[in-house]
Amino acid sequence: MALIVHKYGGTSMGSTERIRNVAKRVAKWARAGHQMIVVPSAMSGETNRLLGLAKELQPAQITPSVMRELDAIAATGEQVSVGLLSIALQAEGLQAVSYAGWQLPIATDSSFTKARIQQIDDVRVRADLDAGKVVVITGFQGVDDSGNITTLGRGGSDTSAVAVAAAMKAAECLIYTDVDGVYTTDPRVVPEARRLATISFEEMLEMASLGSKVLQIRSVEFAGKYRVKLRVLSSFTDWDIDIDEEARSGTLITFEEEANMEQAVVSGIAFNRDEAKVTILGVPDKPGVAFRILGPVAEANIDVDVIIQNVSHDGKTDFSFTVHRNDYQRTLDLLKTQIAPATGAREVTGDARICKVSIVGIGMKSHVGVAATMFRILSEEGINIQMISTSEIKTSVVIDEKYMELAVRALHRAFELDGEPARV
Amino acid sequence: MALIVHKYGGTSMGSTERIRNVAKRVAKWARAGHQMIVVPSAMSGETNRLLGLAKELQPAQITPSVMRELDAIAATGEQVSVGLLSIALQAEGLQAVSYAGWQLPIATDSSFTKARIQQIDDVRVRADLDAGKVVVITGFQGVDDSGNITTLGRGGSDTSAVAVAAAMKAAECLIYTDVDGVYTTDPRVVPEARRLATISFEEMLEMASLGSKVLQIRSVEFAGKYRVKLRVLSSFTDWDIDIDEEARSGTLITFEEEANMEQAVVSGIAFNRDEAKVTILGVPDKPGVAFRILGPVAEANIDVDVIIQNVSHDGKTDFSFTVHRNDYQRTLDLLKTQIAPATGAREVTGDARICKVSIVGIGMKSHVGVAATMFRILSEEGINIQMISTSEIKTSVVIDEKYMELAVRALHRAFELDGEPARV
Repeated sequence: MALIVHKYGGTSMGSTERIRNVAKRVAKWARAGHQMIVVPSAMSGETNRLLGLAKELQPAQITPSVMRELDAIAATGEQVSVGLLSIALQAEGLQAVSYAGWQLPIATDSSFTKARIQQIDDVRVRADLDAGKVVVITGFQGVDDSGNITTLGRGGSDTSAVAVAAAMKAAECLIYTDVDGVYTTDPRVVPEARRLATISFEEMLEMASLGSKVLQIRSVEFAGKYRVKLRVLSSFTDWDIDIDEEARSGTLITFEEEANMEQAVVSGIAFNRDEAKVTILGVPDKPGVAFRILGPVAEANIDVDVIIQNVSHDGKTDFSFTVHRNDYQRTLDLLKTQIAPATGAREVTGDARICKVSIVGIGMKSHVGVAATMFRILSEEGINIQMISTSEIKTSVVIDEKYMELAVRALHRAFELDGEPARV
Repeated sequence: MALIVHKYGGTSMGSTERIRNVAKRVAKWARAGHQMIVVPSAMSGETNRLLGLAKELQPAQITPSVMRELDAIAATGEQVSVGLLSIALQAEGLQAVSYAGWQLPIATDSSFTKARIQQIDDVRVRADLDAGKVVVITGFQGVDDSGNITTLGRGGSDTSAVAVAAAMKAAECLIYTDVDGVYTTDPRVVPEARRLATISFEEMLEMASLGSKVLQIRSVEFAGKYRVKLRVLSSFTDWDIDIDEEARSGTLITFEEEANMEQAVVSGIAFNRDEAKVTILGVPDKPGVAFRILGPVAEANIDVDVIIQNVSHDGKTDFSFTVHRNDYQRTLDLLKTQIAPATGAREVTGDARICKVSIVGIGMKSHVGVAATMFRILSEEGINIQMISTSEIKTSVVIDEKYMELAVRALHRAFELDGEPARV
């Protein structure tokens, strides 16, 4: 018998029929002798519907007072979900009880719409589990010191589930979603992409931050911090598949170094075409130039990803960075009208039709030449590299958007990630 | 400057456009210098939608554990309403803050789906009002000692509003609804029906209990107990009508004896065709016979309204009572198969095609012959009276359903209630 946390996404909770299937799946685990906690998201579409109503009414200025109300409104989606799931579990003959974040409480800070969990009180949950009940807890939300409802931001239910698993010292946190695990790359681009049976926490963090939207990145950080054993698996298998088979399916995110040692040098290829590149040319290379360029960008609330500064020639340097494509025009305007004049730069250029391709793998730490291999493969395909950025476990390149599929497929093959697709 | 409570029904909150109008109306009152508390219902249809989802999932047996979840689910409707209204008020340039029942808290007992309010903590509300904020509070719900969400039953938001007004010692509680006040009778039956400018608390209680569904009856009881000045008025006037005119519109439910003294002997005619009559004939008239008949009826959870026992002849008596029409067949079966054999009764008869017509008026206390006048009028119209039941301020008769409109119109005219319809 183990203490297990299940998390179900909005699609899995999308109708009463699907909620009934979730209840049957949880019941299977409970009947196998496990203590069960379930963290469901709001029914799909519900959070958007609620915030859509609010948007029709809200003032131009979204003050903290308005955000407080947005959180109270949005949090109801999960409150309905936990109630419905608890009822469905009782219809399955189990004892079940639901809690909203404030009822435990799940204590957060007061940053409405993007609050962070501070502490989870486990007293009621522990007592209910001991009494043989399945405990259903709202994702996405908590309560601050003053008793205000807060939400954790989009995808926050993943974080809630991991935080509950950490607070309860659960044996494992299973994230049921509409994909059946983490893949070596996007199977829509590379049909030969394989599901990974395991991935290290650090690799998952890079994959998530690089746009593989299987898990909210904060949930992965949380799992890393509290060493929560996390598994991503499909909620679209039949609920009555063999429980041992289900427990081994999907992708396990692991913290054990041994597991990593058996892995390939490169675990996956991530890519992202949401970015645009801007370059400011011929900037006088004086101390503080990076700050004088990026300070105003940050002030304008524009997130910057890759940053490159080349060595200088004749006391001048070129400075490039990437931003989200939605911020491209605004960034370009800012550089041209304010930053270039202020820094004495010669010229500002940009390109929105780029993409970022990354190889990710914890094995890279101890294997030299992995980045070199990447560059060689791209060169053999005739793909020009515009920017390079590296970390201990990933190497990213910025290339022309039109080469994205070609680059991803070539790298996937070169690093021997092709193979039989994993059994679903 | 006064402390005013506004309550808006589900229809008034039925769309973002209507919520915006509610906000404008409240803003008008706030700008006139009043401290404002608003208690809105869930958007119309929302509670039914939520409980409909739950119904698809719930087990055959509705245990308290299931009812606990039903309350948590249903309560979200009002949580959304208060958030949206608070946002709309902020868009009007006011400061506003919303609270769910558990946040104040509004303490109730633990009777899920029909909880009763025990106490309302006014600390937060008082502080917010003093800080110049409009306070928006969920109707219909509270929280019990163990931190479970409870609801007060259908129409419970009226009771919430009155309870809040009582706790805050508000100058007046205005119930905005889809009718423009309390009428001498239903204008759909008697076009000459007049809106009453005032009605006494006791009369309102009788009118409400007799099926004039303007206010939830518990809210009227609450208002009586705590002497809350209550006004029923229309939310479908333009929001920007003159505030003094609005403050005098609708019907004021009053506790002042002076006001009553000026009133007519009969204030209104109520009627109800939701009932059915059953009679058990030739019951041996022994002590305890009423209990032996009605005990099993109560045990079967059937509500009984009018009860008549005639004087006995030859040691036998006839016993009649009315039940809701939905319970008619069940009551008849119970009488025939169990109660008649057990009591040695001769026969069981029943009639579902009856109606109850009542004259209501606090003036009846001090005016003899009012009931006699009622019986004379009905006799002149050739209407046979099947049952009679009286209280200090009302006289009810049960008659054949087909005479209902005729009886109501004749009585309305005879007691001089006809007149110019009140200005809306």
